Amino acid sequence: MNAPRRMVILVDGHTDTLTAKTAICVIRYRPEEVVAVLDRGAAGKTSGELLGVGGAIPVVASLADTPPANTLLLGIAPPGGKIPVPWRQIVLEALGRGMTVVSGLHDFLADDREFTQAAARHGAVLVDLRRNDECEVAQRRGIRAECLRIHTVANDCSSGKMVVSVEVAQGLQKSGVDAAFVATGQTGIIVAGSGCAVDRVISDFVAGAAERLVLANQHHEVIVVEGQGSLFHPRYSGVTLSLLHGTMPHGLIACYEMGRRVVFGMPDVPLPALGKVIEYYETTANIMHPCRVIGIAVNGVKFSDAEVAAECARMEDEFKLPACDVIRHGPQKLVEAVRKLMKDFRQKNCP
Amino acid sequence: MNAPRRMVILVDGHTDTLTAKTAICVIRYRPEEVVAVLDRGAAGKTSGELLGVGGAIPVVASLADTPPANTLLLGIAPPGGKIPVPWRQIVLEALGRGMTVVSGLHDFLADDREFTQAAARHGAVLVDLRRNDECEVAQRRGIRAECLRIHTVANDCSSGKMVVSVEVAQGLQKSGVDAAFVATGQTGIIVAGSGCAVDRVISDFVAGAAERLVLANQHHEVIVVEGQGSLFHPRYSGVTLSLLHGTMPHGLIACYEMGRRVVFGMPDVPLPALGKVIEYYETTANIMHPCRVIGIAVNGVKFSDAEVAAECARMEDEFKLPACDVIRHGPQKLVEAVRKLMKDFRQKNCP
Repeated sequence: MNAPRRMVILVDGHTDTLTAKTAICVIRYRPEEVVAVLDRGAAGKTSGELLGVGGAIPVVASLADTPPANTLLLGIAPPGGKIPVPWRQIVLEALGRGMTVVSGLHDFLADDREFTQAAARHGAVLVDLRRNDECEVAQRRGIRAECLRIHTVANDCSSGKMVVSVEVAQGLQKSGVDAAFVATGQTGIIVAGSGCAVDRVISDFVAGAAERLVLANQHHEVIVVEGQGSLFHPRYSGVTLSLLHGTMPHGLIACYEMGRRVVFGMPDVPLPALGKVIEYYETTANIMHPCRVIGIAVNGVKFSDAEVAAECARMEDEFKLPACDVIRHGPQKLVEAVRKLMKDFRQKNCP
Repeated sequence: MNAPRRMVILVDGHTDTLTAKTAICVIRYRPEEVVAVLDRGAAGKTSGELLGVGGAIPVVASLADTPPANTLLLGIAPPGGKIPVPWRQIVLEALGRGMTVVSGLHDFLADDREFTQAAARHGAVLVDLRRNDECEVAQRRGIRAECLRIHTVANDCSSGKMVVSVEVAQGLQKSGVDAAFVATGQTGIIVAGSGCAVDRVISDFVAGAAERLVLANQHHEVIVVEGQGSLFHPRYSGVTLSLLHGTMPHGLIACYEMGRRVVFGMPDVPLPALGKVIEYYETTANIMHPCRVIGIAVNGVKFSDAEVAAECARMEDEFKLPACDVIRHGPQKLVEAVRKLMKDFRQKNCP
């Protein structure tokens, strides 16, 4: 389909900033492609009112109520990635209208016989963003020494790594650097138009998949590779490590959400202090490649401007690193940190 | 098939101790099930002469030359897990004889149309040891506090972790402890008769798969969970971490092969010193659960008795931990280390 994408994003009650992160990020970075948000309980509101992004984009109760659209995006990212049961009818209705249905869930649309039959009947397309056929281990061959690799990491999953990666890459571009955002998750893939959902790759091949993303993008001066999960998350730490070791970053941006004390989805598991987070990521990254944390990205979505400003000041003081909330303050401080690392890097490469 | 397994193990020139580790371990721990080794270039020798294990088990040039057998095992574990091209004819011949063909490779037999058609034609069975349908994240629920969890880790892959795990579990059993070996790789699965090849699991679900192995085996007093890969291996570090964090061991046994200086399969990547290995595994394990290294397993396969004894003495002196080569010395020192940890553990659980 080469027609411009005109998306309806299905959230249907899952509107908190963590569960609806796919919806929120696509609306934030691809607003021109979003014609409506589908939430049966909030119809009549605007996207801005419901999700805090998307301004006047309407919230509708059904596909029948939306402006002309050709794509339905399932806009949530629940742990484990299962398709919510009540959504099946909506997916079938979209397919009945010939719409492309796009999903980032682990449960593949294309593995569901009712969906594939409906798609075939109506000439509709099913897109599973997490599907991949990665089957090669990392090789450590052909890595371009002149490309600076930046990677976002965090104390937890769903902390804002993707947003920080996009903002820093865009900020670098605005400052004249040939930079690219490299997507490693389903939301990033919609935003970037390419990438690999590494959490769905067979574990033996995740570092290889990360390496191939580097190889495919290293013609840029700087790449900002989106991190996944967290080395401190009982469920996803291995995904995070494979990606970190496959990417071999020169610089890390440490992300966290203010006020979060326990692991997302696991309230019995406390999160470590940021100092420990930084130290452990640096130790771990340096197993494969010299690397240091160059900045801190504070996600202050639940706090006031003053509270976030105070938090950033505390972090800068404690860690002697630039700290900002990219949504509130813009990414400039982190962009400057990358430019500084580029300068050191160039001097080392071309002394 | 409930008939006793009578296996021919295909190695066909891949006889070095690393590449043939599946063959060697199955012969070592299931010798009563192995009727022949198939190696076209070494027919007429014994398994003992060719592989250093298996005594008088004959090495044959073709399936026509073997004693009566009902199973063909593909006995190698190459990086990436592809089926060697010259083996296709042998697999087809085995299927033609109605034999079960067992493979631990990433390339599944059952995904190969020529193999599935031949199997169907002759009523033969294809077994892919790495196949799994793991699709649940770790939950941290239902973990039995009274089961002591031991885990083998290493500075590199193919270092002897499976052998150490089996030997220590068997040694514990002989000393009267209700212990079980828990298999996490294709070879271990043949030896144990159950398990999960975690390197083939979708990365998001590896910690969950490890947790389910714990849940399935924690009725024992002690479980020895086989480690995979290495936190220092650019290709597999994430598999290792997911398994470590999903297992939540109380005690680790640090394994390494004497004389190895670079990562297996990646000659440009140096291996770290054992002190760094121990420190990093302990730090990493303790993110999830209190844990310490309780012993060192030296794989001295390429060295003399005297050299291995001297190495073990050096390690014991440097790290104040028991050290032995389980093949050469037996696992007693490591068994004692586990029993000591059991005692501390019981005192803590029932003071």
